[in-house]
Amino acid sequence: MTVLAIVGATGAVGSVMIDIIDARETVPWSEIRLIASPRSAGRRLRVRGEEVEVVALSREAFDGVDVAMFDTPDAISAEWAPVAAECGAIAVDNSGAFRMDPDVPLVVPEVNAEQVHHRPRGIISNPNCTTLSMMAALGALHRSFGLRALVVASYQAASGAGQEGIDRLQAEIAAVAGKGVGNRRGDVAEAIAAAGLPSDSPFGVPLALNVVPFAGSLRDEGWTSEELKVRNESRKILGLPDLRVSATCVRVPVVTTHSIAVHATFDGPVDVATAQQVFAAQPSIVLVDEPEAKRFPTPVDVVGEDPTYVGRVRQALDFPNTLDFFVCGDNLRKGAALNTYEIAEELVRG
Amino acid sequence: MTVLAIVGATGAVGSVMIDIIDARETVPWSEIRLIASPRSAGRRLRVRGEEVEVVALSREAFDGVDVAMFDTPDAISAEWAPVAAECGAIAVDNSGAFRMDPDVPLVVPEVNAEQVHHRPRGIISNPNCTTLSMMAALGALHRSFGLRALVVASYQAASGAGQEGIDRLQAEIAAVAGKGVGNRRGDVAEAIAAAGLPSDSPFGVPLALNVVPFAGSLRDEGWTSEELKVRNESRKILGLPDLRVSATCVRVPVVTTHSIAVHATFDGPVDVATAQQVFAAQPSIVLVDEPEAKRFPTPVDVVGEDPTYVGRVRQALDFPNTLDFFVCGDNLRKGAALNTYEIAEELVRG
Repeated sequence: MTVLAIVGATGAVGSVMIDIIDARETVPWSEIRLIASPRSAGRRLRVRGEEVEVVALSREAFDGVDVAMFDTPDAISAEWAPVAAECGAIAVDNSGAFRMDPDVPLVVPEVNAEQVHHRPRGIISNPNCTTLSMMAALGALHRSFGLRALVVASYQAASGAGQEGIDRLQAEIAAVAGKGVGNRRGDVAEAIAAAGLPSDSPFGVPLALNVVPFAGSLRDEGWTSEELKVRNESRKILGLPDLRVSATCVRVPVVTTHSIAVHATFDGPVDVATAQQVFAAQPSIVLVDEPEAKRFPTPVDVVGEDPTYVGRVRQALDFPNTLDFFVCGDNLRKGAALNTYEIAEELVRG
Repeated sequence: MTVLAIVGATGAVGSVMIDIIDARETVPWSEIRLIASPRSAGRRLRVRGEEVEVVALSREAFDGVDVAMFDTPDAISAEWAPVAAECGAIAVDNSGAFRMDPDVPLVVPEVNAEQVHHRPRGIISNPNCTTLSMMAALGALHRSFGLRALVVASYQAASGAGQEGIDRLQAEIAAVAGKGVGNRRGDVAEAIAAAGLPSDSPFGVPLALNVVPFAGSLRDEGWTSEELKVRNESRKILGLPDLRVSATCVRVPVVTTHSIAVHATFDGPVDVATAQQVFAAQPSIVLVDEPEAKRFPTPVDVVGEDPTYVGRVRQALDFPNTLDFFVCGDNLRKGAALNTYEIAEELVRG
């Protein structure tokens, strides 16, 4: 397998995919092909020291491609990942289009790498970035203690909404900065309007100096698509169809790196020291848990990093067999581009 | 009872206490006395349209005072609230000094107003702002359904660390704004240093473009003082010494208004419609729960407001008798100054 395509190469995740390919020399790809919408075709991006021209998404664009990594909207993936597969590529898709399809494996290599080999549709899905941010940690604990239930609350970065989300947060921060106005809705809205920003935004309401308890779209009974993804994808990845999950997904004014407060209940007794050993033994996890020295995971420490950072590990005082902890993962790297590329590496490794 | 003192009148909470006294005409106080550290004595503040000179904290300052509201550090309250009581005042204290003292009631008027009358030490405590932000909502649900367990994650504002916290966040936001640097630790730290801010801060690490999973001080087994306050104070206020609680307390780059993601388990079945009715019937709660119209509580909507805002009410899909919801409360108002003043009103009401 020697030709790798990036579909959605000019987006926020696509550009991190290129960074990762530049930095990792795990696979001697003979060609990296950059594919994007016709609007972006003709742009030239630097990959492994060479200029590569972006080509428009078409059936021909997949000629000779072995692995095609997609970071595109659900509708684009739904249409084009099967086309890539028909053309002989294995599609590794980071949209929500196929994640719950029983014929499409949903893979986090350190948890269920072996599932890349069962792909009847020629498509492998990459999990949602929020689920992914905690999955390395949960997979490791599950192997040791047997996971039963999860109650999680997220602190999700603006870049989860793509480049548009990053630009909007940066513009809002610039608009409110230095005004000393506090964060009353009227003052924040006025500063945003005075800076010439449109009143509608990817977040629906102001994100600067605010938190927004809504991500994705509304589904049944008041749950959001993002919250249901955390539940359903965690169950599928861990192979626990009856895992009990409640998630509250909240956007915070952070550019990059999702954080999650996790309350996880296991089949039997757990203790902090053993859990810390489990985390520390996992190559894709960095344990940062010395709160007495003000050392705990925070988003700014994790931006641009591959591992998941875990800390604030505590034994629940009133709930048996339960740990509380805090996890941070770069939502553009492990949460998206990195995990997708790790799946591609796993395919080549065979 | 006609003379009201504010001890700590020049702080962030003290100034909100003055705003509340100006706005509410519930009690015809004959005098509002402003008390602060000797450093602030002599300053003149406007109260109910008149200039009032701040006097230094001393035994004499309590002469003739009927109710003394304290918003001072624990050590100051520990020393001076008993002095106020000796001088014949009822001290209503917003520090942590007395909250768990069995001879000091811990009061949220809409939950346990009657307890203001049993105060053997002449002191009544006001709960921690994080606990208070969710207590009106939990008290109402508890009366209807019987509360058993709580798993909560907080999104706490900078002003929970006082004026110093507000100033630091505003300065950090101004330092990082417009740089377009993303939020890597190095870039954020460099921008903060370039703006001339000291490297130490009330939050220990950068708060702009970040979240900080640590508030208060470190206690046993990795728990923070803030997380234990949520547990212990909730139990005391609700009269449920065995209430099961796990809290993760996290600071977010919001100036004012604490938010909390709540996962609450009850003695018996609960449903969303009934819970919404319970919330809507409570005068101190505003239900904002139309996520299809992007209407849910966010901090900017609640700054300066007295009620607790509640929304995103969902029945847990996998946990029996359990609701998930999101709550926002102005940590300087209901979370501090307002609840303290409501206790004073309750005392006058007799």
